[in-house]
Amino acid sequence: MTIDEPRAPRSVGVVLFDRFELLDVFGPLELFGALPDRFEILLLAENAGPVRSAQGPIVVADRSYGDTACPDVVLVPGGIGTRTLVQSRSFGAWLATWALRAELLTSICTGSGVLAAAGLLDGYRATCNKRAFHWARAQGPRVEWIARARWVHDRDRWTSAGVAAGMDMTLALIARLHSEELAAAVADRVEYDWHRDPTWDPFAAKNGLVD
Amino acid sequence: MTIDEPRAPRSVGVVLFDRFELLDVFGPLELFGALPDRFEILLLAENAGPVRSAQGPIVVADRSYGDTACPDVVLVPGGIGTRTLVQSRSFGAWLATWALRAELLTSICTGSGVLAAAGLLDGYRATCNKRAFHWARAQGPRVEWIARARWVHDRDRWTSAGVAAGMDMTLALIARLHSEELAAAVADRVEYDWHRDPTWDPFAAKNGLVD
Repeated sequence: MTIDEPRAPRSVGVVLFDRFELLDVFGPLELFGALPDRFEILLLAENAGPVRSAQGPIVVADRSYGDTACPDVVLVPGGIGTRTLVQSRSFGAWLATWALRAELLTSICTGSGVLAAAGLLDGYRATCNKRAFHWARAQGPRVEWIARARWVHDRDRWTSAGVAAGMDMTLALIARLHSEELAAAVADRVEYDWHRDPTWDPFAAKNGLVD
Repeated sequence: MTIDEPRAPRSVGVVLFDRFELLDVFGPLELFGALPDRFEILLLAENAGPVRSAQGPIVVADRSYGDTACPDVVLVPGGIGTRTLVQSRSFGAWLATWALRAELLTSICTGSGVLAAAGLLDGYRATCNKRAFHWARAQGPRVEWIARARWVHDRDRWTSAGVAAGMDMTLALIARLHSEELAAAVADRVEYDWHRDPTWDPFAAKNGLVD
């Protein structure tokens, strides 16, 4: 448990893109959003305005990331749109520079493939959605990819497994930045059965990544 | 297990309002959205266009519900905005008529208070978020409120407990409409640890509603 000193809320900047995965974004934001005194949510995209999710619903980005200083916490979601996003050399070059100013770089699901493609996970341990694990690995040959993990925390990088795993990672991050008790209180508030063990991962075996 | 015959996708209409709870909406939509051949998602609100969530992020409603035929599945989320919504007699009168045409009426969290206030749960068993249970009960004195329940399914009404419970209920609903195998495949796809038992509910005791 860390000492929980008063400070200004940390900014959490979500990098949205066409066909992002809904729960990758709104699972974590439900949890950060329960603590408005600690976290300030910013939705960022190439342009301010509507961004379509992989599931169809449209969300409004508050600001263009090109016009926004890097937040304290960068959150990169996954979703089928990542497959296109990693092919943009201009996006990757921008992210590689911009995101380095963050206190913490985080990703959900295939968002770790986006971080990896920008070189931001080189020399770090990381994980990804277990269905897209081989794709993620191909984005970052200098990353130490961990197959069996609900999430991986390595220094200032936090990467989660697929979709719903982002909620477990976010609670662990809240516990690390504030306290285990605060994270548990948030989980109880939203009636979420928090997996606290980062090695809990039945999905690695279900997808044939481990025995 | 029901026989899974081909048919047109069911429409799932989400009734949005100012300060709805993010995960109440996007947990279920992540799961319905994984099956676009079975479910078509519609975001509805008083007016088409932006609607602000309780946590801040803004979502775009596809259509005005006043201009939209009742969908196959009506989904009413919760959130702090329900406290204002139930005070609108015109909204309640509209919902009471419109929603009766649905095949299934569903709610997440304090959304059951909205259904109850419109008289749509009279004579039914139902549940709600455990922190707002007394508030929900006050909205529907002719409802049989169940304190210890992850969700309650009674005929054509499905009501879930708080926030994250909506995902467990949605998977149970997919299992009922299609098959248990399909619901399990969706849960695996999003790496979600599905609670299949509707009586699993540690939050009722944590909030002093049961011993």
